[in-house]
Amino acid sequence: MKLEELGERRAIDMIWDAIGKKVDYDDCAVIDDGKHYLLLTTDYVGEETHFPGNVNPRALGRFIAAVNLSDIAAMGGTPEFFMLSSFMPGDTHFDFAKELITGMRSMLERYDVEYLGGDFKKAKMIGFSGFAVGRVLKENILRRRGAKVGDGIFVTAPMGKNAASYYLWKAGLGDFEPVLKVEPRVREGKELAGKAHTCMDTSDGLIASMFQMQKINNLGFSIDLDSVPLHPLAIEVMEDLKISLKDILNFGGDYELVYTASSKILGYEIGEVVEGKIDYGGKGYESFGKVLDQT
Amino acid sequence: MKLEELGERRAIDMIWDAIGKKVDYDDCAVIDDGKHYLLLTTDYVGEETHFPGNVNPRALGRFIAAVNLSDIAAMGGTPEFFMLSSFMPGDTHFDFAKELITGMRSMLERYDVEYLGGDFKKAKMIGFSGFAVGRVLKENILRRRGAKVGDGIFVTAPMGKNAASYYLWKAGLGDFEPVLKVEPRVREGKELAGKAHTCMDTSDGLIASMFQMQKINNLGFSIDLDSVPLHPLAIEVMEDLKISLKDILNFGGDYELVYTASSKILGYEIGEVVEGKIDYGGKGYESFGKVLDQT
Repeated sequence: MKLEELGERRAIDMIWDAIGKKVDYDDCAVIDDGKHYLLLTTDYVGEETHFPGNVNPRALGRFIAAVNLSDIAAMGGTPEFFMLSSFMPGDTHFDFAKELITGMRSMLERYDVEYLGGDFKKAKMIGFSGFAVGRVLKENILRRRGAKVGDGIFVTAPMGKNAASYYLWKAGLGDFEPVLKVEPRVREGKELAGKAHTCMDTSDGLIASMFQMQKINNLGFSIDLDSVPLHPLAIEVMEDLKISLKDILNFGGDYELVYTASSKILGYEIGEVVEGKIDYGGKGYESFGKVLDQT
Repeated sequence: MKLEELGERRAIDMIWDAIGKKVDYDDCAVIDDGKHYLLLTTDYVGEETHFPGNVNPRALGRFIAAVNLSDIAAMGGTPEFFMLSSFMPGDTHFDFAKELITGMRSMLERYDVEYLGGDFKKAKMIGFSGFAVGRVLKENILRRRGAKVGDGIFVTAPMGKNAASYYLWKAGLGDFEPVLKVEPRVREGKELAGKAHTCMDTSDGLIASMFQMQKINNLGFSIDLDSVPLHPLAIEVMEDLKISLKDILNFGGDYELVYTASSKILGYEIGEVVEGKIDYGGKGYESFGKVLDQT
């Protein structure tokens, strides 16, 4: 069967099954390191899947760093080190690479993360894999498993800004740059650390996150979609371009944190953990199911 | 200026210059961790640059793991963890991905390295970035800097098997699979650890390694090219296909270790460290200067 027929998550499940390993899905891999856990994560960002060919390299560099740091943030960790594996066509101009690294470093410096270099190779398209290493005190780690019936469900900020920017760009009404504008919620993650019961980021959109959390916790994540706080741009785009709330919430790219806790620690309450799973009418965004296109 | 005009190493130098960071080139990034150093490395392996579209996925999986473990080996470390960021077209069959992961895991298991998952995304070509984490006792670390005048220069095995396999494939006389057959010299690296003065792997070919070592140590790496031990297949291919010794030694893909020490620890002696740099008539293989082609 072809990967696009399976979808990213089912293909990953089938691979883990094939190699006979049982895994707890989290935003990072977790390694025992004395009083701490080391958190390791890698995220691929590539042409056509995540950005168009004429992308602003500095914005792209910031984005690549941000999406990797977001995974550390989602586990309550402090990001410490970053490496980048880059590949691009031979006729790419040096300034593109330089601007990209400059953008990446500006994001890393904001969170005091050291850039350790990486790899730099020729390929027929532009793409990157970032690798981030972080650390968290064992008692403070935030995982996806651990929700309790009665927990509130919260997000760190109103949703939909990146989705709205994407639909504006798709309609030829805006630049792509705002789609890549992501702030990893490192400070928020550290504030939630040791307090929230579960946490993950909304990189694939709120619906995908809720779908994952239900599966892992075997509980219902009951959210009233109509009362999810939305960014003003999302409200505007939904009205002007006739984009549905589902299209906004299904789109990845927010990189906010969604967490459960017995009471609010920060952000906005959007629902409650209940017995029995909720049907959202879909699984949300999947890498192998979507192509970035501009009409 | 375009990247293919600069070449990989000059582009990397220029990027480090641009961000004002002075780096000691080594096969891995090195992080202080108490009595140990953590060793982090990432290597990109992609279609056309490293393998043709009709590659054997199991052989490719072993290769991706091996080239990353080789970097840990070159610093005398024990590889412990591995992650893989994968991307491939949506019409790729699941079996390709499964075979690839199976090959990768067989290589990791050989060296007791734990696979921690990674990322899996859609793209218009097939490519991978591996990320390996290792550890070495501080006093045992092997670096590229530290050669002494009078040191012998040694390699772990006869050279040129992978280059010979490549030229056979290019001439339509063999499969591509043997080009990807690499054994990371983890055991040898650990035997050299704490004893050799310098070490690196020969991933970009012996000439490129010598060129790098001269630059870093500001000394001459005097090797008698005609007496470098060659794999029988390399000798055969040089004769039958009229391939020059330089073409064999310039080709990357061996992943042996080259080290300097006051006397032989293992392997084959190929030269001596001297005052004043040697002109090899070239810098060896560079990613942005070569394309994998079959005529």
